[in-house]
Amino acid sequence: MKILVLNCGSSSVKYKLIDTDTDNTMAEGGVEKIGLADGFLKFKKADGSKEIQPLGLTDHKGAVEAILNNLTDPTVGCIKDYSEIDAVGHRVVHGAEKFNKSVLITDEVIQQVKDCYNLAPLHNPANITGIEAISALMPEVPQVGVFDTAFHQTMPAKSFMYALPYKFYKEDGVRRYGFHGTSHRYVSARSCEFLGLDITKQKVITCHIGNGGSITAVLYGKSVDTSMGLTPTEGLMMGTRVGDVDPGAITYLMHRHGYTADDIQRIINKESGIAGVTEISSDMREIEAADNAGDERAQLGLDMYEQRIIKYIGAYAAEMGGVDVIVFTGGVGENQTGVRENVCEPLKFMGVEIDKDLNARTRGTETEISTPASKVKVVVIPTDEELMIARDTRDIVSALK
Amino acid sequence: MKILVLNCGSSSVKYKLIDTDTDNTMAEGGVEKIGLADGFLKFKKADGSKEIQPLGLTDHKGAVEAILNNLTDPTVGCIKDYSEIDAVGHRVVHGAEKFNKSVLITDEVIQQVKDCYNLAPLHNPANITGIEAISALMPEVPQVGVFDTAFHQTMPAKSFMYALPYKFYKEDGVRRYGFHGTSHRYVSARSCEFLGLDITKQKVITCHIGNGGSITAVLYGKSVDTSMGLTPTEGLMMGTRVGDVDPGAITYLMHRHGYTADDIQRIINKESGIAGVTEISSDMREIEAADNAGDERAQLGLDMYEQRIIKYIGAYAAEMGGVDVIVFTGGVGENQTGVRENVCEPLKFMGVEIDKDLNARTRGTETEISTPASKVKVVVIPTDEELMIARDTRDIVSALK
Repeated sequence: MKILVLNCGSSSVKYKLIDTDTDNTMAEGGVEKIGLADGFLKFKKADGSKEIQPLGLTDHKGAVEAILNNLTDPTVGCIKDYSEIDAVGHRVVHGAEKFNKSVLITDEVIQQVKDCYNLAPLHNPANITGIEAISALMPEVPQVGVFDTAFHQTMPAKSFMYALPYKFYKEDGVRRYGFHGTSHRYVSARSCEFLGLDITKQKVITCHIGNGGSITAVLYGKSVDTSMGLTPTEGLMMGTRVGDVDPGAITYLMHRHGYTADDIQRIINKESGIAGVTEISSDMREIEAADNAGDERAQLGLDMYEQRIIKYIGAYAAEMGGVDVIVFTGGVGENQTGVRENVCEPLKFMGVEIDKDLNARTRGTETEISTPASKVKVVVIPTDEELMIARDTRDIVSALK
Repeated sequence: MKILVLNCGSSSVKYKLIDTDTDNTMAEGGVEKIGLADGFLKFKKADGSKEIQPLGLTDHKGAVEAILNNLTDPTVGCIKDYSEIDAVGHRVVHGAEKFNKSVLITDEVIQQVKDCYNLAPLHNPANITGIEAISALMPEVPQVGVFDTAFHQTMPAKSFMYALPYKFYKEDGVRRYGFHGTSHRYVSARSCEFLGLDITKQKVITCHIGNGGSITAVLYGKSVDTSMGLTPTEGLMMGTRVGDVDPGAITYLMHRHGYTADDIQRIINKESGIAGVTEISSDMREIEAADNAGDERAQLGLDMYEQRIIKYIGAYAAEMGGVDVIVFTGGVGENQTGVRENVCEPLKFMGVEIDKDLNARTRGTETEISTPASKVKVVVIPTDEELMIARDTRDIVSALK
């Protein structure tokens, strides 16, 4: 099947056209700066080079239309007609407690996604605009929603509840939902497949670390805890997100500076993390370079970043009563060999031993970087959320027939 | 030496008179409801029974005076004259980065403690009223300040920094300070003494768990991380404090309900934790009883409470590259055998094995509850912050002579 995978953000639409018979990516790219005069379409050509086409001021529907036109373009396209697309799979960010797996998009599902707007006020509305654009442009094609939160719906209450007054859970849905679920699901399954292990018997910790980042405890194939929470702000130190912080520090800053909730939201999401601490960059590659050049604040940022990963791995191992497999994925997890080495170093006491040379050579390829003697397997697994979305879409659409 | 130990809260003064030559507590009690018409003095009599004396409306100075009068009372007192008190040791809550150990109280120290008022707006002013009351009533006696935060001043920056914009650390002192330092210092040292181990070679995790609670990683005798932060709100689930929570949940609740910073501060400190989740009680004994009676919410509260302890132990073990000794102290840590058993259960993979029968019999006494085969020693050590304050006071005052 040919599945179009769409990931609609508030000002961008990313796409991949995937042939699920071969797992082959037939086309990929995205529209950026939606709503601005300098909006553009960027796509990869058959020879691997990238082309940028100015689009000008457009909306999400215009962006999706530009993508479809590009896919069917006689020169750079790879299909002749819209009708060759068998189904469209959408990344949907927040499914709250309503969705514990991917679903066929129906009017009822659209309403339920809208019911979650207050939990993801930037993302869910953008996801819906993508769904509505496809409905308008290709009314016959089946669409599937794949939720970032769904994989984590198996968490037990002791993991997803905050110690806030109970009414906030009951009445407002305030609890840990977790994100990056499609990635954690993919790499946990793929790591066991790659290692020849039965996931239903493994204690796996998946570290999806990049500019955003989260760590998940996957017990016997199911998410039992994850570091992101009600929102993606909690947990690890991220590019510009604060991650874990004393809630008392939030009220302290509000009192001291007269900050509003909006101010705090901006500070903890846009001005914190690696960028906020180092005052250099939110990009870990630049931080690593600055650290190598002797910048002390970069070293502090890197130390903090790694320490939080170490602590989450320790916490989740304790929670699961041990760990069999640790997976690194995401931009940093796949490529920053120093971070992986520093994270694994103190974990020796729990049977983690990596092959440092092999680790130092491994970037973005599926690799077991632990030694043969290591009690805990450590692997690098490049994530592929789009493939997961395409497969879910294929499975749901196939079942319809 | 006879040392009077004072712990002044906003509406109470607790005291102990300790003979540091014998570690004997000569007298103990406290004044409660300071500032209210029904204020009273409660003290333990020589035969162990407790007596309550109404005081009526008074202030901190009046409370301290009532304590001194009681200590010298011909009938119930244990000394003849104020002058028998060699020194007074005060618990001071927040020493920020100014104090990394106990100090003799001077005008300069008083000013520095006042400089920390904004970090501990309820506690530090109360501590100062106690110091000033003693200065007025016993102008000649040397006084010592023992800070809750001092023991944690050895934490490395990667542990004490939040991933907030750096300026909040630099300009406002926003960082992790940690609390219960006197307790963590006492039980970490005492546990190694009790086990015949050299603390400078041990990786110790101290769990001070009670209505308030914090866990500390003590590496070779020094605090390297602790679960409370800028304020005592962070970390474990507590009686009424929320502990760790998504900072995004705070802004979410503010937006949704129009809460102010004051509202949030009240909610996360007074209406959350065990009490907020269970809607039963903030007292873990009542929660355990309700759980035993089959109350589901009590079970959830207990599960959450234990899980957070498990996660912190795992996190700190990973951070230190292992753990040699785990210490339980505080009201729950010393007495609630079920919590200790449930916390240790999943830690088997890191070499923790407790003697369940011995654990079940151990309440409030120094006991090694791990089996002889256990790689990690697990001990119950009743905390004694007052003794620690008395000893610090003795040491500092002795050095003056």
